[in-house]
Amino acid sequence: MKNHGTLVILIHMNKQNVIIHGDICYSKTQKELAVLENGYLICENGKVAQACPQIPELYKSFPIEDYTGKLIIPGLIDLHTHAPQYAFRGLGMDMQLLDWLNSYTFPEESEYINLDYADKAYSLFVDALKQSATTRALIFATLHTPATLRLMEKLESSGLVTMVGKVSMDRNCPDNLRQESADAAYKATKSWIETSLKSFKNTKPIITPRFIPTCSDELMQKLKLLQESYSLAVQSHLSENHGEIAWVKELCPNVSTYAHAYEQFGLFGTDNVPTVMAHCVWSEGEEEQLILDNKVYVAHCPGSNTHLSSGIAPIRRFLDRGIKVGLGSDIAGGSHLSIFKAISDSVEVSKMYWRLVAQNSPPLSLNEAFYLATVGGGSFFGKVGKFEPGYEFDAVIIDDSKIPTTNPLTIEERLARTIYYSDDSLIIQKYVNGKEIISGKTLERSMSSC
Amino acid sequence: MKNHGTLVILIHMNKQNVIIHGDICYSKTQKELAVLENGYLICENGKVAQACPQIPELYKSFPIEDYTGKLIIPGLIDLHTHAPQYAFRGLGMDMQLLDWLNSYTFPEESEYINLDYADKAYSLFVDALKQSATTRALIFATLHTPATLRLMEKLESSGLVTMVGKVSMDRNCPDNLRQESADAAYKATKSWIETSLKSFKNTKPIITPRFIPTCSDELMQKLKLLQESYSLAVQSHLSENHGEIAWVKELCPNVSTYAHAYEQFGLFGTDNVPTVMAHCVWSEGEEEQLILDNKVYVAHCPGSNTHLSSGIAPIRRFLDRGIKVGLGSDIAGGSHLSIFKAISDSVEVSKMYWRLVAQNSPPLSLNEAFYLATVGGGSFFGKVGKFEPGYEFDAVIIDDSKIPTTNPLTIEERLARTIYYSDDSLIIQKYVNGKEIISGKTLERSMSSC
Repeated sequence: MKNHGTLVILIHMNKQNVIIHGDICYSKTQKELAVLENGYLICENGKVAQACPQIPELYKSFPIEDYTGKLIIPGLIDLHTHAPQYAFRGLGMDMQLLDWLNSYTFPEESEYINLDYADKAYSLFVDALKQSATTRALIFATLHTPATLRLMEKLESSGLVTMVGKVSMDRNCPDNLRQESADAAYKATKSWIETSLKSFKNTKPIITPRFIPTCSDELMQKLKLLQESYSLAVQSHLSENHGEIAWVKELCPNVSTYAHAYEQFGLFGTDNVPTVMAHCVWSEGEEEQLILDNKVYVAHCPGSNTHLSSGIAPIRRFLDRGIKVGLGSDIAGGSHLSIFKAISDSVEVSKMYWRLVAQNSPPLSLNEAFYLATVGGGSFFGKVGKFEPGYEFDAVIIDDSKIPTTNPLTIEERLARTIYYSDDSLIIQKYVNGKEIISGKTLERSMSSC
Repeated sequence: MKNHGTLVILIHMNKQNVIIHGDICYSKTQKELAVLENGYLICENGKVAQACPQIPELYKSFPIEDYTGKLIIPGLIDLHTHAPQYAFRGLGMDMQLLDWLNSYTFPEESEYINLDYADKAYSLFVDALKQSATTRALIFATLHTPATLRLMEKLESSGLVTMVGKVSMDRNCPDNLRQESADAAYKATKSWIETSLKSFKNTKPIITPRFIPTCSDELMQKLKLLQESYSLAVQSHLSENHGEIAWVKELCPNVSTYAHAYEQFGLFGTDNVPTVMAHCVWSEGEEEQLILDNKVYVAHCPGSNTHLSSGIAPIRRFLDRGIKVGLGSDIAGGSHLSIFKAISDSVEVSKMYWRLVAQNSPPLSLNEAFYLATVGGGSFFGKVGKFEPGYEFDAVIIDDSKIPTTNPLTIEERLARTIYYSDDSLIIQKYVNGKEIISGKTLERSMSSC
């Protein structure tokens, strides 16, 4: 925004009332894209008032940000990523899950006991997330409290809305990543939750057992106590890889599915707050039913599932059954933090699933995958992911003119191209709860009115 | 290069003798990466003399380009792409091959009768190819002679080495893309070949029947005459999609496989010059044997095969049998011109093939896919794709320090990350036949010696 002397103060104070002007699109339903060329998107008190072709009388006093010719889309939602894995993204991709955890992930995560290292690495992660099209995210940290709080401070400053998990593990992992006892883990997690709740507004704690193999029964029971006491959401991993599933079966012979290994502790869907499980590549039958019944979210991470040779999650079937699905980057099983990339990956793997696995499972269209990345994951955070009245005002402004072409394109085509190129340098501004969060970008636009 | 007054003239004259200094790597074999940290790559008369840790006495007088800390890799080879489809890359990806040809490809290609349009669109394509890591490419144009010659002029000016095909079609396509008769097509193609051969040094004509469904028997016979008269290489498409394969079966009931529909006209591998077939997703049995026996190259286009829901080509099996394989971007079935992207896509689809189709077919490693993109496709052009004595000096210089990280990485890890990010803005210089071809980039380096 240009500095208009003293006026700029007033604008900043009123930042949560703003009108942005450009080529608007969002998912009206799973199949249907709403498009408004050269329209106005009105933000009142941080929420969407409406998207409209002209500014209604009521809002004529609001400041206007002019993004004529730019695409305006809802912020994208990352339902699953690991902040401490960002530093080694794109490496070790010739391995499968359990080898990759031991060779890359655990050695890297053990470095986060060093707060200086964590500070440096988390700065890279938060900067990249801030510059991406993601506005809200669910994030795994490590088990280290100081490093996790440092990550949360950085996220809070970024303007993004996130939930962050200090990871819980007390078995089957290297000594320096194993909490000394379930009780010690409980106390440390409780103290971290209390500090987080009082320190941050947009950065919430989330209960995060890493996955069943690394969490003892006692630890799971204690995590349930904390989940209930503070009414927190839950995130973990489910049925990603054959080796992992077989291991869970050995560790939990008393339950019928991997999902039930969480369910037995009350950590697989709760009444008040949502639970999300990453992957669900091999979920079926009784487990799939439990996901549906307990309204558990599936964080579909197609990039990661391909890189680690895990397989292809049956997303068409999940959607047909009414299971809630959003997308995750799953850094660093996934190599790219971009949820645009997760959108195109979702479409691509669904085509291979259709061609090679289940001919009765038509591929996701690009519009459907865009829906998952916005509305699908958005509902985990409340009314998020659409430009309809009452939704949180999270918007991303894209200068897609930087992708050269010859003939004019429709807005839908411009969106498709933006997704397939997933180039963060096209993003010129981002709003979260009605607030601009990217500064220092060169914006070729002007204030039309204030 | 900085301007050192009159000295610069001498340097340009001697451009094909040069030493470049940096972190060198290339594929020694299909499995093994050769790595030389802080090494010297010596170019003598446009060819690789050697890669070495110190400069031998013999070459001490050669100018040195200092790329300390930068990656130096062989130029990548694109064995299959369509220049006139670049303008609509990333669009229409929810369709399969035959619908997509009719909805996007044919309407777009018919615009190339307009030379002004072709000029504009081909400029975009050639600029992008020049800025990419690709140094050599096989390219489909359209059937329009003036537009095709215009494309070839631009490619010749770019410094890239290419083969370009004026496309032949005389049936089963829109009227404005159908040549009026096989004889008219023959005459036009002959005249185009002669003009090309006398006008260009690095841009050769290649015989290009689009695919069997659009080429009559008579046209194929005449293309064979031209192929033999001028001793030209051949490019086309093979066994990409089920609908296409069924169509060929109907059109050519007399032959046993799609490959034999080319073979019956002598257009499926020749003694002196190579033939390349794009896709081969569903090639097996007798067809696979013919590919092997006739030393036909497979242009593996994993991005395109996924986007158009074609399937996954059995590349591991092809390699194990000794079939020649390179990679293709297949713009605009593929959405990205980057062969880095084709490398990572090759690995990714091979993982899905292994997991979902054939458990006896281990995935390609990243090193293997890099080999396909350099040595695999390179041999189509002669001694191309390695930094070993006598190979053409095609090299790409990459400033991968722009991908932020925390800990130092090995050269192999830096290559992996460069491939997974496939970001052309990391490329700071490119050599083809020993000549620098990118100008106007800000190079943070200096002349150490001249």
